[in-house]
Amino acid sequence: MSLDAVLSRIDQDLDAALDRLFDLLRVQSISTDPAYKAECTKAADWLVEDLRSMGIAAEKRETPGHPMVVAHVDGPGPHLLFYGHYDVQPVDPLELWHRDPFDPAIEETEDGRVIRARGASDDKGQLMTFVEACRAYIAENGALPCKITFFFEGEEESGSPSLVPFMKEHAEELKADVALICDTTMAAPGLPSIATQLRGMLKEEFTLKGPKMDLHSGLYGGPALNPLREISKLVASFHDESGAVAVEGFYDGVPELSDELRAQWANAGFDEGSFLGRIGMSRAHGEEAFSAMEQVWARPTLEVNGMWGGYTGAGTKTVIPAEAHCKLTCRLVGDQDPAAVRQALRAHVEARLPTDSEVVWEGSLDGAKASVMDITRPEFEKARGALSAEWDREAVFAGMGGSIPIAGYFSSILGMESMLIGFAKDDDAIHSPNEKYDVQSFHKGIRSWARILEALGQS
Amino acid sequence: MSLDAVLSRIDQDLDAALDRLFDLLRVQSISTDPAYKAECTKAADWLVEDLRSMGIAAEKRETPGHPMVVAHVDGPGPHLLFYGHYDVQPVDPLELWHRDPFDPAIEETEDGRVIRARGASDDKGQLMTFVEACRAYIAENGALPCKITFFFEGEEESGSPSLVPFMKEHAEELKADVALICDTTMAAPGLPSIATQLRGMLKEEFTLKGPKMDLHSGLYGGPALNPLREISKLVASFHDESGAVAVEGFYDGVPELSDELRAQWANAGFDEGSFLGRIGMSRAHGEEAFSAMEQVWARPTLEVNGMWGGYTGAGTKTVIPAEAHCKLTCRLVGDQDPAAVRQALRAHVEARLPTDSEVVWEGSLDGAKASVMDITRPEFEKARGALSAEWDREAVFAGMGGSIPIAGYFSSILGMESMLIGFAKDDDAIHSPNEKYDVQSFHKGIRSWARILEALGQS
Repeated sequence: MSLDAVLSRIDQDLDAALDRLFDLLRVQSISTDPAYKAECTKAADWLVEDLRSMGIAAEKRETPGHPMVVAHVDGPGPHLLFYGHYDVQPVDPLELWHRDPFDPAIEETEDGRVIRARGASDDKGQLMTFVEACRAYIAENGALPCKITFFFEGEEESGSPSLVPFMKEHAEELKADVALICDTTMAAPGLPSIATQLRGMLKEEFTLKGPKMDLHSGLYGGPALNPLREISKLVASFHDESGAVAVEGFYDGVPELSDELRAQWANAGFDEGSFLGRIGMSRAHGEEAFSAMEQVWARPTLEVNGMWGGYTGAGTKTVIPAEAHCKLTCRLVGDQDPAAVRQALRAHVEARLPTDSEVVWEGSLDGAKASVMDITRPEFEKARGALSAEWDREAVFAGMGGSIPIAGYFSSILGMESMLIGFAKDDDAIHSPNEKYDVQSFHKGIRSWARILEALGQS
Repeated sequence: MSLDAVLSRIDQDLDAALDRLFDLLRVQSISTDPAYKAECTKAADWLVEDLRSMGIAAEKRETPGHPMVVAHVDGPGPHLLFYGHYDVQPVDPLELWHRDPFDPAIEETEDGRVIRARGASDDKGQLMTFVEACRAYIAENGALPCKITFFFEGEEESGSPSLVPFMKEHAEELKADVALICDTTMAAPGLPSIATQLRGMLKEEFTLKGPKMDLHSGLYGGPALNPLREISKLVASFHDESGAVAVEGFYDGVPELSDELRAQWANAGFDEGSFLGRIGMSRAHGEEAFSAMEQVWARPTLEVNGMWGGYTGAGTKTVIPAEAHCKLTCRLVGDQDPAAVRQALRAHVEARLPTDSEVVWEGSLDGAKASVMDITRPEFEKARGALSAEWDREAVFAGMGGSIPIAGYFSSILGMESMLIGFAKDDDAIHSPNEKYDVQSFHKGIRSWARILEALGQS
């Protein structure tokens, strides 16, 4: 049976696959920072060359931002589009990394061998599980069992500004029967999972302006409005005592949690105690009325991701700054409309502005609705069977707290359902110092995709 | 009359005096930042050389921090100690300066000619008014009319850690009849002033720690405590709705404003409208029960001088940070005890700490009580007469919002009263970008000191 040969080849080729991944991890493709533009292009070039080395006619496609990588391979089965992103998050605070984030290495840990580097888990390691599965499949069988479109972007960590225009312009070329996305976690360690819903996202950033200039706190302390104090009052007003978001209208479109979904998720292997313990929490700090799992999978949030103002260097500076800054993101669920939430949030802030202050909103930040998957499609059950076989454990349909706006775009622009299958773990420290990806996730991830391709090809 | 000759020499020598000041302003003596240690030493060396060029045996005296400069000159009159500081505040945000802060220049403005540079007003320009007055006096008369000790430090902008030990060790050497300090503003433009009280200061800095590590806001948003949200709630809790500090015990030791003081200050030329308008305020934002002048001169404050945490770079990072930071200073009045206020503030924060968080206080920051001067001493009236003659306007006794802990130390350690006479203006932008000192302040400041030396010498 050809699948066994493919799986066996994957096992034998693991070290070489890791070497290839390391090459990609060395590229400093931080998409949000213009200083790394050339590195983003380098990562795209690397992927084009890697696909071409497998005989796949890949192309780098320019955009106003970082390039896309697109490739098409014909095959007998259904038409699948595989999506991944080659860009990564910034690496600061750099001093908290115990090694150079762009000098990947295998490290032995209590929980087994891990690949340590920025992007190891999000998303280069996950993306390469699919590429390596295709490589082994082609090497063993001379061709793939399905028709496949590869579609990689380099702006996922910076709001994907070029994605929607590109998808609209190339809708005919990109449309497939179903999309595969490898950018999610397993519901529990060793428990293979397919995401049934993803939270949407709204990004905001604002500057609160007060005095005309930075002031000496001795000469002006008292009469001068202090933007740091005022921005703190605004941030404090975003939530009520019960942990709920206190912005009027924020919860419009948030669905009740159905008993059916609660029952399904109860079997998803979410261990609240260990989930919280891992991050140093003794209780869930979100909405009191919901469990930690529900807070992450089913409830919207408003989180401040960055605040700054005044003097932040060594020592003391007795300044009242002219302005203070806040970056925040909302995770959205159900039918929450990003534009309506943005409006509600801005109205909340503007209604609370003190005399002699002014708020300036960063105008370029995007939003995306939440996604809910149609798991009645046959591909979902086939993929679940393949995952269960590889992991020797019944795979589950689970909720996901993250936001992968691309799934919404595939649905709204290309009319295409997405299957989100990922092998990351909650402790991968994505977006954090010392990001890692388990070697097991990488290895069994590759094997999982080989099995899924085989299963989807047998239609 | 010899004073006329001294004043005339000051007028003729003004350009050369400005050149000398520019030399000192070019030295980047930022005391709070260890990167500028050599520059601080360079400023001390410059002052030693400048005093020696006048025939004064000045010495650089090492401390564990930046050096002191000490010099003694004998003379017939009373023994005066003149204090100033050669260090300056940091210059960030550098992009708001319209010229290099350490490349001084004379600029023409609507309000006359100004000296533009970091330290022009605070305190190099003010310090040099006294030095230049002595230079002219010696050049014209061959000696000074009083016995004078020059005492310059280089740590005033970073909490003066070496000052108290140095003063205690050299108390006999430093003790004089009265101290002169030139580090304050005039109560109104062109209105010469002697400070009757100075606010004290307490410095604090804390880190609020939450999750064990930086977290992805999609995977953990909801259950994870967000230190930025929690630190905002803490900062918001520092004041009540009326603008008063809401920390229990904070106002212990704050005196009532006497009718006598209110009457005295009503004549001090404080124009509330123009004071507020200059900084972009339509009303005073401090305690509702007090006027802007009272808020600055007579009331204590708690001001946040810096806050930071999470991602503060370009673009978006969906992080819940492991910690958030806050720098603050309190201005103290009357008998407020810095140690008691520190304890009250820490108790306030610790009583409000949410589960799963921890506060870490920076332990090295100092405090100083407020100072109230005994203006019944004869030196005060002599100095007031000299100032009135120079500025052709009745000089006033005024309150001051700033903190000059040295005045408290002169009193408590050396049993010496201080006369604070400065020529800075409220719009000098000290501690801010584009700091300046009016050429008029410098010129008439030098002339004022010559008159004051002459008046104090005639006892």
